[in-house]
Amino acid sequence: MTAKTNASSPGAKLTLIGAGPGDPELLTLKAYQVLQKAELILYDALLHPDVLDYAPAGTIRRFVGKRAGAHTYTQAEINAMIVKGAQTHGHVVRLKGGDPFVFGRGYEEIHHAASHGIETAVIPGVSSATSLTALQKMPLTARGKNKSFWVLTGCTADRTIPDDIYLAAQTDATAVILMGLRKIEQIMTVYEKAGQSELPAAVIVNGSLADETVITGQVNTLAQKVQSHSIQGPALIVIGEAVNCYAASHRHSFQTKHAYSL
Amino acid sequence: MTAKTNASSPGAKLTLIGAGPGDPELLTLKAYQVLQKAELILYDALLHPDVLDYAPAGTIRRFVGKRAGAHTYTQAEINAMIVKGAQTHGHVVRLKGGDPFVFGRGYEEIHHAASHGIETAVIPGVSSATSLTALQKMPLTARGKNKSFWVLTGCTADRTIPDDIYLAAQTDATAVILMGLRKIEQIMTVYEKAGQSELPAAVIVNGSLADETVITGQVNTLAQKVQSHSIQGPALIVIGEAVNCYAASHRHSFQTKHAYSL
Repeated sequence: MTAKTNASSPGAKLTLIGAGPGDPELLTLKAYQVLQKAELILYDALLHPDVLDYAPAGTIRRFVGKRAGAHTYTQAEINAMIVKGAQTHGHVVRLKGGDPFVFGRGYEEIHHAASHGIETAVIPGVSSATSLTALQKMPLTARGKNKSFWVLTGCTADRTIPDDIYLAAQTDATAVILMGLRKIEQIMTVYEKAGQSELPAAVIVNGSLADETVITGQVNTLAQKVQSHSIQGPALIVIGEAVNCYAASHRHSFQTKHAYSL
Repeated sequence: MTAKTNASSPGAKLTLIGAGPGDPELLTLKAYQVLQKAELILYDALLHPDVLDYAPAGTIRRFVGKRAGAHTYTQAEINAMIVKGAQTHGHVVRLKGGDPFVFGRGYEEIHHAASHGIETAVIPGVSSATSLTALQKMPLTARGKNKSFWVLTGCTADRTIPDDIYLAAQTDATAVILMGLRKIEQIMTVYEKAGQSELPAAVIVNGSLADETVITGQVNTLAQKVQSHSIQGPALIVIGEAVNCYAASHRHSFQTKHAYSL
């Protein structure tokens, strides 16, 4: 491993990269290019390990995520590592799975680095919120059915159902709920009480990865169907008429998966 | 519904690719790979022309979008071109700017092709709805401020303001409004009547491209600010507390733009 010092840190900069929902081939061309030039990569638990292989062998890689049994870094520690890393090594790439600006703390990292005089840039990635349904050929808006989609979290700091879900249940917006699997029964009850028992609904687990699983049903059946599976991994809940397009569109699929080599 | 077989075209398939918000470098690695193998590319007006350069010189490229002065293809014509193209040439790539499953008609094209026995796959792209704010380092959710974002259209078939915007104005969801620039005054009036006159708001025009323009203000000032600019091009309206992060985060930026070459 190389450990360049850059004491005066004229090249100190931070690029925050959204690495996409899982499949390493859903990284953007721009992110790939920037990885070629990175001096230090700080990456999260959600990141697919193959993404790290896009960087040259000599680039320093440091895991700063949360993983069972391993040390958990606080946000303050990560912020400090970014600043020190940029001042010491030059170009820090912060590689984040999921979407760094949707329930992520990308903004805080950018803001902290900028407040230390470090140049910053963002390379947006493919967001789980919009892409995992697309992979299933499931639109987020469906002509004649609805005209919007609402991206929510199922998980609040105090572990209650967010107010926004009660509101969403009263609209025809397609609801895309991240981090909601543990609350799926309560979420579906919210929809049932809003008179939406028969609304189509789906759960996508490990979306875009080889072990992707899709479970479809409707508001009054989905939680039970999910419990009959043994689900492990990040999950997305989708509720709305657009989910109905899934069954119709899922025939005649082929896999686009292939070894990526440049 | 038609249910034809495709006896004579064993290699007939359709890959629908989301090409991202504009910047050709925001294409995914997977999309790039598939372009190498495409036999026919059908592309839209929103597509950045440089994306076509990623395909080999011999690949057939056909414009099927809507552009002033040029022939406008109906959706039925495009659907027919996909089916005939796949049966004649083999692998058709449908390259769509923006997000094919958000107010796009990607689903209809997939469904039509599948109903003719053509294999289909989707490669999701970077969605304008989530990425153009990220490029501005603007989060869509901001800790302690809001827990969701709502993606809406400003444009309905009957040219009125969609009901969803009235509902969104009553929540703290960050509203991301596509195709709303012509209705910006009416949209802001909806928010003012909901008591949100001083909510931060922004317009991003030609996001991710060299001539990107960002105009920030609040609900009661933005429409007037926009009118004082001469705006051309696709625009995104963002309304919510998260927009306030923009000014703080926009210092110390650097450009990630560079010639992409493999």
